[in-house]
Amino acid sequence: MEYTRLWRNYDRTLNSTINKINIISDITIRNEPLIISAKTELMGAFTQLIENSVFAFNENPVGYEGFSIRLTVDEALGKESYDVSSAEKFAVIKGGDCAGVLYGTFAFLRNLRLLGKFEEFSENVSPAAPLRMLNHWDNIDGSIERGYSGRSFFFNDDKIIVNDRTEAYARAAASVGINAVVINNVNVRGNARLLVTEKYLDRLKALGEVFARFNIKLFLSVNFGAPKFVGGMDTCDPCEPSVGEWWAERAKMLFENIPNFGGFLVKADSEGEAGPFAYGRDHADGANMLARAVAPYGGIVIWRCFVYNCSQDWRDKTTDRAASSYASFAALDGKFDDNVILQVKNGPVDFQIREPVHPLFGAMKKTNLMCEFQIAQEYTGQQKHVCCLIPMFKEILDFRMYSGAAHDTVGDIVCGKAYGNKNCGIAAVANTGDDKCWTGTELAAANFYGFGRMCFDSSLTAEEIVSEWCGLMFNDKAADVVREILMDSRTAYEDYTVPLGLGWMCKPATHYGPDPMGYEFDRWGTYNRADRNGVGVDRGPDGTGYSLQYNEPLRTVYSSPETCPDELKLFFCRLPYDYVLSSGKTLIQHIYDAHFEGYERAEGFAKAWEQLEGEVEPEMFANVKARFEMQLKSAREWRDIINTFFYRFSGIPDEKGRTIY
Amino acid sequence: MEYTRLWRNYDRTLNSTINKINIISDITIRNEPLIISAKTELMGAFTQLIENSVFAFNENPVGYEGFSIRLTVDEALGKESYDVSSAEKFAVIKGGDCAGVLYGTFAFLRNLRLLGKFEEFSENVSPAAPLRMLNHWDNIDGSIERGYSGRSFFFNDDKIIVNDRTEAYARAAASVGINAVVINNVNVRGNARLLVTEKYLDRLKALGEVFARFNIKLFLSVNFGAPKFVGGMDTCDPCEPSVGEWWAERAKMLFENIPNFGGFLVKADSEGEAGPFAYGRDHADGANMLARAVAPYGGIVIWRCFVYNCSQDWRDKTTDRAASSYASFAALDGKFDDNVILQVKNGPVDFQIREPVHPLFGAMKKTNLMCEFQIAQEYTGQQKHVCCLIPMFKEILDFRMYSGAAHDTVGDIVCGKAYGNKNCGIAAVANTGDDKCWTGTELAAANFYGFGRMCFDSSLTAEEIVSEWCGLMFNDKAADVVREILMDSRTAYEDYTVPLGLGWMCKPATHYGPDPMGYEFDRWGTYNRADRNGVGVDRGPDGTGYSLQYNEPLRTVYSSPETCPDELKLFFCRLPYDYVLSSGKTLIQHIYDAHFEGYERAEGFAKAWEQLEGEVEPEMFANVKARFEMQLKSAREWRDIINTFFYRFSGIPDEKGRTIY
Repeated sequence: MEYTRLWRNYDRTLNSTINKINIISDITIRNEPLIISAKTELMGAFTQLIENSVFAFNENPVGYEGFSIRLTVDEALGKESYDVSSAEKFAVIKGGDCAGVLYGTFAFLRNLRLLGKFEEFSENVSPAAPLRMLNHWDNIDGSIERGYSGRSFFFNDDKIIVNDRTEAYARAAASVGINAVVINNVNVRGNARLLVTEKYLDRLKALGEVFARFNIKLFLSVNFGAPKFVGGMDTCDPCEPSVGEWWAERAKMLFENIPNFGGFLVKADSEGEAGPFAYGRDHADGANMLARAVAPYGGIVIWRCFVYNCSQDWRDKTTDRAASSYASFAALDGKFDDNVILQVKNGPVDFQIREPVHPLFGAMKKTNLMCEFQIAQEYTGQQKHVCCLIPMFKEILDFRMYSGAAHDTVGDIVCGKAYGNKNCGIAAVANTGDDKCWTGTELAAANFYGFGRMCFDSSLTAEEIVSEWCGLMFNDKAADVVREILMDSRTAYEDYTVPLGLGWMCKPATHYGPDPMGYEFDRWGTYNRADRNGVGVDRGPDGTGYSLQYNEPLRTVYSSPETCPDELKLFFCRLPYDYVLSSGKTLIQHIYDAHFEGYERAEGFAKAWEQLEGEVEPEMFANVKARFEMQLKSAREWRDIINTFFYRFSGIPDEKGRTIY
Repeated sequence: MEYTRLWRNYDRTLNSTINKINIISDITIRNEPLIISAKTELMGAFTQLIENSVFAFNENPVGYEGFSIRLTVDEALGKESYDVSSAEKFAVIKGGDCAGVLYGTFAFLRNLRLLGKFEEFSENVSPAAPLRMLNHWDNIDGSIERGYSGRSFFFNDDKIIVNDRTEAYARAAASVGINAVVINNVNVRGNARLLVTEKYLDRLKALGEVFARFNIKLFLSVNFGAPKFVGGMDTCDPCEPSVGEWWAERAKMLFENIPNFGGFLVKADSEGEAGPFAYGRDHADGANMLARAVAPYGGIVIWRCFVYNCSQDWRDKTTDRAASSYASFAALDGKFDDNVILQVKNGPVDFQIREPVHPLFGAMKKTNLMCEFQIAQEYTGQQKHVCCLIPMFKEILDFRMYSGAAHDTVGDIVCGKAYGNKNCGIAAVANTGDDKCWTGTELAAANFYGFGRMCFDSSLTAEEIVSEWCGLMFNDKAADVVREILMDSRTAYEDYTVPLGLGWMCKPATHYGPDPMGYEFDRWGTYNRADRNGVGVDRGPDGTGYSLQYNEPLRTVYSSPETCPDELKLFFCRLPYDYVLSSGKTLIQHIYDAHFEGYERAEGFAKAWEQLEGEVEPEMFANVKARFEMQLKSAREWRDIINTFFYRFSGIPDEKGRTIY
């Protein structure tokens, strides 16, 4: 779908005879940029929704023949919150602030389109996560690390792009409630290191102005080594006053010039990036130094917890990458400044299709935490395979950490409900690029949409979110088909790739397609250690001890194959091929069944889509059809290679006699 | 060693009191370019060999106090042949032609340096292989495909380089008897396709002039698709007269302008390159069309037999890449023009450390054949590992094909002795780049040197060749040490990487370092099919049938594990891990022993080299020492990963209890 439209696909005519729209806004907010955005959205929408639409502004609605919309602020609602109520001829969009009005406007239009006509409805929502953030891994040369949707629309050839696409993106993000965007890759290389200097200030300012009109804070990823690389200093020691002063100057320049500037995202002492360790300092020293630099402006420092030894010797069976993030950070609980947020990946390793929830969420009660998801489908099919991640994200957000608080799901923790943190939130690595439809396969847009909605309105189930998106994108027939595909897609992908939580059987160079031993003798700490007797790594108390990082009762559950849930069996345990799972199947038969049946389900998706020819726009039909062809080709390789791999080791044939090569 | 010196390291002073050298040449040849090169070489050499050297030319030597050298031609000797005889005060360098004089001059200087003083010796040699060729896989942008010695010295940034290095290279090549050089990669991409046009003619002419002074024919790799890509034609059909005419024009232009132009090398219908198949024609149609274009000028077309399906499905167990080259060419025997030479790789797959000899050598009696070796160490350690290939090459050249002729070793066949072909020879993919020493590790120069010597003088054993090189490069102590390292290096490499002829356990992307399953599920037709029961592919009559491509008795020998030699066991057979080899060891124990002992031998090489500090030039010492560190690091990975891989499958422990991870 054309990038300006996306799920704001207003061109299906509303079922109404009304063609006059009166937009009334409080005089105090009438000229606020966010309110202007709301009104612009309404006008653009109704121009398409209603034939021969006519607009009036701020007239007294009483007796008026058309449909009237009132935009108003009531601070009692709370920041960014909205209360929308609509009837057949009149709607009130009330915001806790102007941002709330803008979000309410998008909510009003969403409901209106899903209903298809003017009728009574109401919706009252306060955003769940304070920060609802997209992390773009865009490089300043225009490439995107782990990008599967074309090139960057923020950067090209060491320049910042600000054009109609920038605004289309900000609108799209705001329409689902995103309020913070990191525009550049956490690996800050080349000229991206100069984003904190005067060189890019004018363009960042222009970008910030666009973002500000959509209530989006602009964040930059920064390189901890910048004082040396950029500032010409001879140290980056966070405890050296001159280093703090250098950063304070950078912050001052950025905050004073860029509208809606939010702060910094930092990947430090991770995968070769610079950090405080070189100076004998810890993560808290590093993060707090930057936090002090941005504090005067209400800025925030987001510090990633993705820290592990990426030069592991495969011979070493005691080091466990899964355990390293907790080991690096848990003891620092309480040592971070109030405006530091630790960004913790949803699982302990790296965005695999199935991982346990990261144990740090249950371990740092006195620290602001943020959950980092990845909608860029790095390990989940690279926007060729359909893989709707919202059910997985919701599972994780609904997962209890047993840390002692009354409400302590991951969602409670990162939304500030568990321990009352104000600075927290949810982030996702973005899946967008300059593709016409933003996201490779059009179906991946459901992850963009769903991520925002999920962060904003925690009452929604995954199915509700997916249904919403389908309702906005498709006619009823197609919506039903696509909803089923999407809801089933994650477990299908899991089944035909690497089930049971084993992970890491993809090709190391691309993270796409199967290579079951590709990581086995490499330095990444991601081993399956398959042999003729069994597979997996024992992460229980007699193994690497990783399971001990969880609170009870999780600790006990994860410490033994008898209690460990099947779907994580091979994450936590090393098991023989004839081990009987809780399902009653042997391990090896589960592997075979999952691969054969997962592939069949993928075939089913492709066939179901085929039947939508004529029901969806031709260009979208072709886009998704082509991706399904790629998916099936790849899924067949996954099925056959993983089955063959385990058959060669186990020697145990498939009970059902299906072909294993 | 500085690139101008190499094994022509003349600066060790000759043990002599003579300092006057009289060079006398026949009046008829005195001003021939090749004779001028010979005289220049002599003057340059003696300037360094003798302190305060003084030269005289063409004076009557009788009674002359110095040392006199006579350069003379006697056609009865035969083309490129020489007869050198020397005494304490006088030497005669007789050539069958001027080229023979030049080669004789290098032979004279070699003997002189090895002896270290003027004394009686004689050497009379006719070159064994008519064409003694180096194939450079240099790309026109300056990169080198499978280059491990820096960048190209022929090309940079789409330009041809002709400078002092060009002459140094031509001297080096001529000094070991090379008489033909293909300057560009067989994969002819980008602007390299324009080498057959006017665009590069001036530079090729300059290059050809340098080559001509050293008796080197200049060949170009050409793209069979050039009539379309370059000529703007709508076909490349070799049976379409206009295509032949286009090539004839190209040939005319090249031969009439470039001194010593030799012809074309063609990779067609291979790994995606264009070829005659697209037009329903066969290799003979394609090669003969080009041959007719170059025939008027005595030109030659070299057509590569490296043809296989590079999009194989790993599930397909009937297709055998090893069998494909024979299958494509054997039936075409007798169909190629006299000035076509088929270039056949030494083994049927692709330059692995151990392969059987290519069966085509025993199958095409009515066709000119050329053997293609690879001194670029693509699969043999990439000029980080020491791996002297001369013993392997000699093994292959000495191998009988049982094709019916009285003399039918591979060497006999490619040197024209088996069936009386005039157009044949030996080629090697070059291992040079713009490294200061040409070849990555200095020790790899032994392969360059040895390849040339082996092609020229077939009477030499591998040990004699290696001894020569060591004698020219090192003092006596170092020469002894390095000779032992070199002679032992190939089997050490074989042992700690992939013994028993299995091959292909390297990393697919780089061909360096171990990845035992890296090719297993890929499209390259190179599978080990290891499982818990055994390893290898049955290429006998009950398997893929590849062994049937050999003449008896080889056919029978290779068709059964009982008769197949151990070193090729896993090339020809699929065997269980407890199979007892001819050596008496089980297969698995051989694998373990080879890896442990091969690594120990590599350690021994490194230690032996360490002891040469002060005995070899410091720069060379450091160069080789650094490479040995890389070799040991890599060899340790090979040892442990391959052992672990087979232990995981077999479950059989090492009899000697060494550590397998």
